[in-house]
Amino acid sequence: MVNHQERLDRTFAALVDPTRRAILARLERRESCSISELARPFAIKLPAVMKHLDVLDDAGLVTRLKIGRTVTVRLRPQPMRAAMTWLRRYERFWSGKLDRLAAYAESKEAEARSKER
Amino acid sequence: MVNHQERLDRTFAALVDPTRRAILARLERRESCSISELARPFAIKLPAVMKHLDVLDDAGLVTRLKIGRTVTVRLRPQPMRAAMTWLRRYERFWSGKLDRLAAYAESKEAEARSKER
Repeated sequence: MVNHQERLDRTFAALVDPTRRAILARLERRESCSISELARPFAIKLPAVMKHLDVLDDAGLVTRLKIGRTVTVRLRPQPMRAAMTWLRRYERFWSGKLDRLAAYAESKEAEARSKER
Repeated sequence: MVNHQERLDRTFAALVDPTRRAILARLERRESCSISELARPFAIKLPAVMKHLDVLDDAGLVTRLKIGRTVTVRLRPQPMRAAMTWLRRYERFWSGKLDRLAAYAESKEAEARSKER
């Protein structure tokens, strides 16, 4: 059984490689893609692309469907949701900074307005 | 020079390990932590914790400050922001589903209301 932590491990591990991230980004823009279409923009050979797809498939981030001689790859983005939920708790660190910036801008505005009176 | 892609590689690589994620989660709840305090809840030896801290430090996710014999570790969450931005483009997939679910619930409600008349 794959538990929540192991699923997160696999998702983050799949996202470590820039080629795998680029594959996911390509699939995000299209409904589905054949493997040769998918491999076209990359300066790597088809077997290397296949290996990346194996990792993405193991992480549950893509599905592959073989019909005749064509394999169709589709994005399955759901596991990324848990990764995002995990990261979200750190959001307060940078959004906090923005809040302070907004508060500062507001106080400056109030100051300017009081001078106008 | 470390470019944007390499920084993302390092951030995701740092997040692959559940112990490293747990270290970051502990640091999120405290301002700062000594290494021995940090290591306490983990069933691994101090040198193993130190190795994890090296990875986190290389990824720019923690800072270590040595004063006398005590090393103080602090969270530096900024690199996670880029990781979150990267993941955010996939958000529409699950929020889209929720939108469809909301639309479905609304149509059912309207149907129920029209029957009441």
